[in-house]
Amino acid sequence: MTTVVIIGAGNLATHLFRAFNNSEEIRVVQVFNRSLSKIKDLDQKVPLTDNISDLVDADVYVISIADDAIEPVSGELSISNRLVVHTSGSVALNKLDPKNRRGVFYPLQSFTKVKDVEFKEIPICIEAENEPDLNILNNLGDAISEKVYRINSEQRKSLHLSAVFVNNFVNHLYYIGQDLCEAHQVPFEILTPLIEETAAKIKKLSPKEAQTGPARRNDIKTINSHLEQLENKTYKEIYELLTRSLKETYGRKKL
Amino acid sequence: MTTVVIIGAGNLATHLFRAFNNSEEIRVVQVFNRSLSKIKDLDQKVPLTDNISDLVDADVYVISIADDAIEPVSGELSISNRLVVHTSGSVALNKLDPKNRRGVFYPLQSFTKVKDVEFKEIPICIEAENEPDLNILNNLGDAISEKVYRINSEQRKSLHLSAVFVNNFVNHLYYIGQDLCEAHQVPFEILTPLIEETAAKIKKLSPKEAQTGPARRNDIKTINSHLEQLENKTYKEIYELLTRSLKETYGRKKL
Repeated sequence: MTTVVIIGAGNLATHLFRAFNNSEEIRVVQVFNRSLSKIKDLDQKVPLTDNISDLVDADVYVISIADDAIEPVSGELSISNRLVVHTSGSVALNKLDPKNRRGVFYPLQSFTKVKDVEFKEIPICIEAENEPDLNILNNLGDAISEKVYRINSEQRKSLHLSAVFVNNFVNHLYYIGQDLCEAHQVPFEILTPLIEETAAKIKKLSPKEAQTGPARRNDIKTINSHLEQLENKTYKEIYELLTRSLKETYGRKKL
Repeated sequence: MTTVVIIGAGNLATHLFRAFNNSEEIRVVQVFNRSLSKIKDLDQKVPLTDNISDLVDADVYVISIADDAIEPVSGELSISNRLVVHTSGSVALNKLDPKNRRGVFYPLQSFTKVKDVEFKEIPICIEAENEPDLNILNNLGDAISEKVYRINSEQRKSLHLSAVFVNNFVNHLYYIGQDLCEAHQVPFEILTPLIEETAAKIKKLSPKEAQTGPARRNDIKTINSHLEQLENKTYKEIYELLTRSLKETYGRKKL
């Protein structure tokens, strides 16, 4: 049994509380938040506190708060020589105050309040300063997910950057696609199967092998016809730049 | 029972033959291709021809060939006043020779030889010059897919353009994500669940509601840190442009 104190009450903190609470191998022994009103729903399930000097004993203290607050809050903790982890993709391990043993427990997923999350499928990236702490985090990860990876701070940085491309930017391209459809009264749902197929395909083929489209086959006529269609100046720039990038990726090397 | 002649032997023609052939409501009565060697595998299943003047009677003639060849080949057909359709997303109906009744039968999906296709889920966009022909195409579509949409040539153009954004360009962002991961020995498979979640999410939320990330919340610190990390000049330009587009979409209107 691993005991956990959760520090924070945001989206991820809430999802983590639920996942930990549903595991028989983990016991959440306390949830801290500066404002008790935000966590009052948990009142029947776990002891709450809004006093940072009043944290109880636990194997792991999970700080799940805004990136900028991680460093100062880790300094305010009254505990020392405990295993304290944050859950951020973009904050290095050494931003945590060194009075405690430090680690990272980063679930790589996009959490929104609306959608329920199945933690089992979510990769969890762990990092710690020594092997025994890594094992504790490994057990914590194994209890809620089938996929736990040891990823150092440098690797996590590139993973987080990569996630911006494959999640945030991809979703923006979905938005542009919807905008272009709606301008001609075309229901965007027609594109949903293609979108899912595109995402599913890269489990069987690498993105490089899976690439299709006018830029891939250097179909200038279609490219020009698309550029003429695009009235939005920014969309046109995006089309041009991604087409150029595709040509750089697949075209002949420049002399 | 709808009878069909298929003209062509490419990826889509082959997938269409299989789907039509598996339906009890459709009978493929002939397949034409200039080179018989490319369609010889079908020999036991359907009469073949390489003579364009030798087409048999059918309810629908499906031209599934390269975009540029649709117009000339439709002119070479020896038949007249028959229902002739092409299967292209980017060619207008009126490119077909007017000696026949014209239509479009466009399955909106990305077809590769490697991956098998479940037609049932693929939206089929149909267009014709009159209601009886639309009904024939509707029956043809219904026989192989659960989703048939009436889409005119103008709408189909915007759908095709939109598909470039949500399929071709999205796949290129996957490629960039993989490239960034591999530069730091991070297995790209860690990102697969996020990619699938991003694609699945827009069935419940609109892309506009689903948007997250540093550009969405105007997190300048993270954006600058990401830009510093990007060594590839083109990737940096893509990051900057998509971030700007996100800001234009969600930010305050410019004065």
